[in-house]
Amino acid sequence: MAKGEEVSNKQVLLKDYVVGFPKETDMVLNTGTISLKAPEGLEAVVVKNLYLSCDPYMRLCMKEQDRTSFLPSFAPGSVLTGHTVAKVVDSNHPNFKEGDLVWGINGWEEFSLITMTNFLHKIEHTDVPLSYYIGILGMPGLTAYACFHELCSPKKGENVFISAASGAVGQLVGQFAKLMGCYVVGSAGSKEKVDLLKNMFEFDEAFNYKEENDLDAALRRYFPEGIDIYFENVGGKMLDAVLLNMKTNGRIAVCGMISQYNFEKPEGVHNLFCLISKQIRMEGFLVGNYLHLYPKFHDFIIPFIKEGKISYVEDTVEGLDKAPGALIGLFSGRNVGKQVVVVGRE
Amino acid sequence: MAKGEEVSNKQVLLKDYVVGFPKETDMVLNTGTISLKAPEGLEAVVVKNLYLSCDPYMRLCMKEQDRTSFLPSFAPGSVLTGHTVAKVVDSNHPNFKEGDLVWGINGWEEFSLITMTNFLHKIEHTDVPLSYYIGILGMPGLTAYACFHELCSPKKGENVFISAASGAVGQLVGQFAKLMGCYVVGSAGSKEKVDLLKNMFEFDEAFNYKEENDLDAALRRYFPEGIDIYFENVGGKMLDAVLLNMKTNGRIAVCGMISQYNFEKPEGVHNLFCLISKQIRMEGFLVGNYLHLYPKFHDFIIPFIKEGKISYVEDTVEGLDKAPGALIGLFSGRNVGKQVVVVGRE
Repeated sequence: MAKGEEVSNKQVLLKDYVVGFPKETDMVLNTGTISLKAPEGLEAVVVKNLYLSCDPYMRLCMKEQDRTSFLPSFAPGSVLTGHTVAKVVDSNHPNFKEGDLVWGINGWEEFSLITMTNFLHKIEHTDVPLSYYIGILGMPGLTAYACFHELCSPKKGENVFISAASGAVGQLVGQFAKLMGCYVVGSAGSKEKVDLLKNMFEFDEAFNYKEENDLDAALRRYFPEGIDIYFENVGGKMLDAVLLNMKTNGRIAVCGMISQYNFEKPEGVHNLFCLISKQIRMEGFLVGNYLHLYPKFHDFIIPFIKEGKISYVEDTVEGLDKAPGALIGLFSGRNVGKQVVVVGRE
Repeated sequence: MAKGEEVSNKQVLLKDYVVGFPKETDMVLNTGTISLKAPEGLEAVVVKNLYLSCDPYMRLCMKEQDRTSFLPSFAPGSVLTGHTVAKVVDSNHPNFKEGDLVWGINGWEEFSLITMTNFLHKIEHTDVPLSYYIGILGMPGLTAYACFHELCSPKKGENVFISAASGAVGQLVGQFAKLMGCYVVGSAGSKEKVDLLKNMFEFDEAFNYKEENDLDAALRRYFPEGIDIYFENVGGKMLDAVLLNMKTNGRIAVCGMISQYNFEKPEGVHNLFCLISKQIRMEGFLVGNYLHLYPKFHDFIIPFIKEGKISYVEDTVEGLDKAPGALIGLFSGRNVGKQVVVVGRE
């Protein structure tokens, strides 16, 4: 197709603000058109999207803006946005040229016109899977790295517990903690995930929280001496059980609370007095404050990837029409590892 | 009375472990006997207790030991212990002699034999009210000082909210925050307390939480731009409302949760997701880790007391038989300021 040509452009739109558990029908596939030529007079880039990232935070953009929002909500009727890997089709921007591979925040559509290029990065290392730029090398990777190293103050030999441990972030936190010489236990929601944690990611222990009637008892079993660091991805009942099992001077890094995102009123957490009795530090994390660490993080992790010392498991679906189902699958834990949507491979 | 003499010794005993709201009848007055001579061969001290401190944490020692306990529980049938000011009647300890005034942790009784003297301190400054050593110069004072300065990272111009603000700790935190140039608002449970906060302690604003149907709306009224620092003394519903009103990078120092101490199951806190969305740091405090700061704290505060730049309000009752009522009064907020029991003045 010629550059100036208007082509059809399949997109995923938000139908309306979502209340409660999201359904595939909360999103709608739409076919619009787009010019593949970057408009004159603008430092703009037109890209073909290759990989889309499904991330739990996107659920928070699907509800009407409220006081807990930290990102703008998606507008009903407009295209969803998220982290993507893409290929430049045309560019009027000096930093990008046709054929460049890029990663950044972008629309859930086949082609995108990008005029705000400050979140667009050129991919330098093409000897790793491109999808890694929305996973281990992208936002989830930096989240795991910065939240663990900057907020948890890990020390060799400490006891680390990670919830949603086979997810895009959790699987990395566990491997980082093992590299530090910590004792690492993860929870996940299926036998397959638990096996991954123990066999592929080499966690010391892992358990299926859905098979535990008493989370407190489960944690006591794996941490008879208590937890030094809790990497919080889920919130709710798990957090309550963890609080009872923390050690004095423990740290809780609050990276996510996926179990709560579909509730109108989040569950109550009852054991916060443990913050006092055990002098726990609990701190919330947003990756947006740590974007300056990307170069340092890439220098740290790329050798581990190349040497096979850090693994990363992705769950891929093929085709933009599968994107809504993949996204909502996060909230029932259907994905095993990082959820990726392949729109195209080149 | 001669030193060797056995004398009668009125005591306050815990009748049995307390469940729910404590009652005066959970404690019993008992008259035992004690020798006023320190036993030979021991580095022991016999003291006459002058002032007893009523502190919220004591409620936690009245229940059966559990996993949230950070201090040993009082044993049913035995004398309560707490912070006291006392006068040495006899001593076999080289650091203490008859007539010395001391402060430390001691029994709720007329006379005490102290064999564990590591928490006993000689009073050097006798030109301030002696009761200050269980208040502004004692554990509550150090708590206010260390928890505010070490955990809250206060900066000039920041917005500070304090709950239970007229209490033994809160009244000082507010004054420390004003000294730092912060905007300071406190909540308390009566008009009299609110007036104290505004007029005596010179808080910028104060409100009676019992008269607010909507704590969130009250906080929005006083903090239209949000709260940088929350000094948490109460827990429960107030914490939930505060979380919604925190600013990005806010800090919550969790010093106490008095509203929860009488519940078998503490209330649930629902808005913890705000920790993430506002990147809040929340940290629990126990004064026991900061005892080394007493000298620095006294050097800091004694000049302010002498110059009249810091005020301290005490609520005193006279007589050991009034101690049980004074202690349980903390949980209905009957006390105005630091609750002191005067057993004797010399």
